Amino acid sequence: MRTAVVIGTGLIGTSVALVLAGRGVTVHLRDHDPDRARTAAALGAGTDEVPGETVDLAVVAVPPAHVAATLAEAMRGGTARGYLDVASVKGGPRRELEALGLDLTSYLGTHPMSGKERSGPLAATADLFEGRPWVLTPGPDTDTEVLNLALELVSMCRGVPVVMDADAHDRAVALISHTPQLISSMVAARLENADETAVRLCGQGIRDVTRIAASDPGMWVDILTANPGPVADVLAGVAADLDETVGALRALQSADEDKRLGGAGAVEAVLRRGNAGRARVPGKHGAAPAAYETVAVLVSDRPGELARIFADAGRAGINVEDVRIEHATAQQSGLVQLIVEPQAAPVLASALREQGWSIRT
Amino acid sequence: MRTAVVIGTGLIGTSVALVLAGRGVTVHLRDHDPDRARTAAALGAGTDEVPGETVDLAVVAVPPAHVAATLAEAMRGGTARGYLDVASVKGGPRRELEALGLDLTSYLGTHPMSGKERSGPLAATADLFEGRPWVLTPGPDTDTEVLNLALELVSMCRGVPVVMDADAHDRAVALISHTPQLISSMVAARLENADETAVRLCGQGIRDVTRIAASDPGMWVDILTANPGPVADVLAGVAADLDETVGALRALQSADEDKRLGGAGAVEAVLRRGNAGRARVPGKHGAAPAAYETVAVLVSDRPGELARIFADAGRAGINVEDVRIEHATAQQSGLVQLIVEPQAAPVLASALREQGWSIRT
Repeated sequence: MRTAVVIGTGLIGTSVALVLAGRGVTVHLRDHDPDRARTAAALGAGTDEVPGETVDLAVVAVPPAHVAATLAEAMRGGTARGYLDVASVKGGPRRELEALGLDLTSYLGTHPMSGKERSGPLAATADLFEGRPWVLTPGPDTDTEVLNLALELVSMCRGVPVVMDADAHDRAVALISHTPQLISSMVAARLENADETAVRLCGQGIRDVTRIAASDPGMWVDILTANPGPVADVLAGVAADLDETVGALRALQSADEDKRLGGAGAVEAVLRRGNAGRARVPGKHGAAPAAYETVAVLVSDRPGELARIFADAGRAGINVEDVRIEHATAQQSGLVQLIVEPQAAPVLASALREQGWSIRT
Repeated sequence: MRTAVVIGTGLIGTSVALVLAGRGVTVHLRDHDPDRARTAAALGAGTDEVPGETVDLAVVAVPPAHVAATLAEAMRGGTARGYLDVASVKGGPRRELEALGLDLTSYLGTHPMSGKERSGPLAATADLFEGRPWVLTPGPDTDTEVLNLALELVSMCRGVPVVMDADAHDRAVALISHTPQLISSMVAARLENADETAVRLCGQGIRDVTRIAASDPGMWVDILTANPGPVADVLAGVAADLDETVGALRALQSADEDKRLGGAGAVEAVLRRGNAGRARVPGKHGAAPAAYETVAVLVSDRPGELARIFADAGRAGINVEDVRIEHATAQQSGLVQLIVEPQAAPVLASALREQGWSIRT
């Protein structure tokens, strides 16, 4: 790959362009807002000049609703040998392209699963895709050459290629991303008009469940509008469990002991299914969740306390797998949970105790 | 307070006893399993001998379903001048006690909002309650002396006393604890039979939403059985939002543009209500969530990397408010997000860059 066009210079497009430009590919940047393309060019992501000839690869990085029209225009102009898009939904755009009667042999729909706390070209970085799954959805008619161009791009971006059917991808993201977003928003929405005294009692559990409820509604309306069917299907499954659980809780209020026992059984069943599902969520490095152990350390709120803990852990030769900071309410102290491999936990606890830390076991 | 009885020597009871014993109070430990009381005594939480005379305070720390019977027995035996329980549900036990015809002037229902990753006396620590809300639910008939005994206990435990009506407490915990638990379990339950390829795509969002789905079903059945009405009421509110959102997503699949616009509007509305509710969740130290900024640092998986980051941050005089470690999938590297006060973010980023760290802004 020597030449490329990136159409849409937001977070994802500009990050892709930064990677390509960094590897010596000549990148032409295009955006419906020329200022954004200029910003991306100023960041070193390429040039905003129009290419003089057909490039090797065109990457379309526009919101899902604009993917098909943007691709169609680029294809009809003979922009590139191969075409990718990087939108977060894959089935709809492909069907729109088919409806437009385009030859799709040179097209491959892809989706890099990269987080974005911020959007726009200024948030772009060349390491955005490192270690993240990058879904490729080739059809039976996709040219091998285009698939290889995509694999080359994913490799340059240090992503992890995952091949899936376009509709299977959309069902998967409905399950693991779009539904959790909506449910998190709904739990948080219950707090909108709650008593202040109730809100004061919030702990780490609800903080975690509602973290993503702070996400940008505009971006999520775009995503959900492009994937309504699969999300509605998953949500309907949650709704069925929810209705059953409301029924089970009402049965727990019954004077009839058999009904109460049935209610308790149904509540326990959904909690156990939750255990089973949670056990499948990959932990660090995409592996099955290891049986890590937690060493909890009480710290004050002074600068340097965390540094001291991690320095002491490092000196003990311990690799801390994950960290959770559980802050106390209304007091200037907190609990730091260091998550480590089981055999490391007693070593770490003893090393930290020797250094004077208060360990909660 | 000079003498106390703690009935039920699990995590909470033994932790209370450790605090009291540490402050010179003579603590008598009682449990339906004498081995657990002996274990608690061996930890320094008191003696498992029966008190010779009426003590100042009896603390009942048994599961919600056993609170009323245990309290009634202790009261009828004239065990103490004042009686507290520390169960996570408050309305039901009070009504059971009333139904038993007991004089409740010497009783106060309380609930320390303390986390417990593990249970039993061996998990107990004297710092379990530090900085956490401790709800007190006095009735109009509660003796001031008993309220003051409770405030003395909470103060010794370094908890933060919060006075609430018993039923308001139960509605509050239904909202901020019991409902999030069930919803987290239901989202996780969707993954139980999901395709492995879909599960591989899980990111930090679903990891956070489903973290508490790993909780112990037995303990949660006990809690939910004691608070079914308020939890069912909150869940029914979520169910109504869920049904409306499923309808809105189906409308987004419609050929009718007005229906699609209505669907998008309803989806956006629930996301915005989620924003508003999430903004009320207290952050660190019970304060309203500050507009913190994130400095993201790319790290390798070697021991000591975190120590180096925190040491470098400490040397720059920065107080890290919170940490999030976002691990890469299938690669031995990850992103550490340091959450700091807005004015500290550029200072930290620049200091870390100078030390050779790769910062993603």
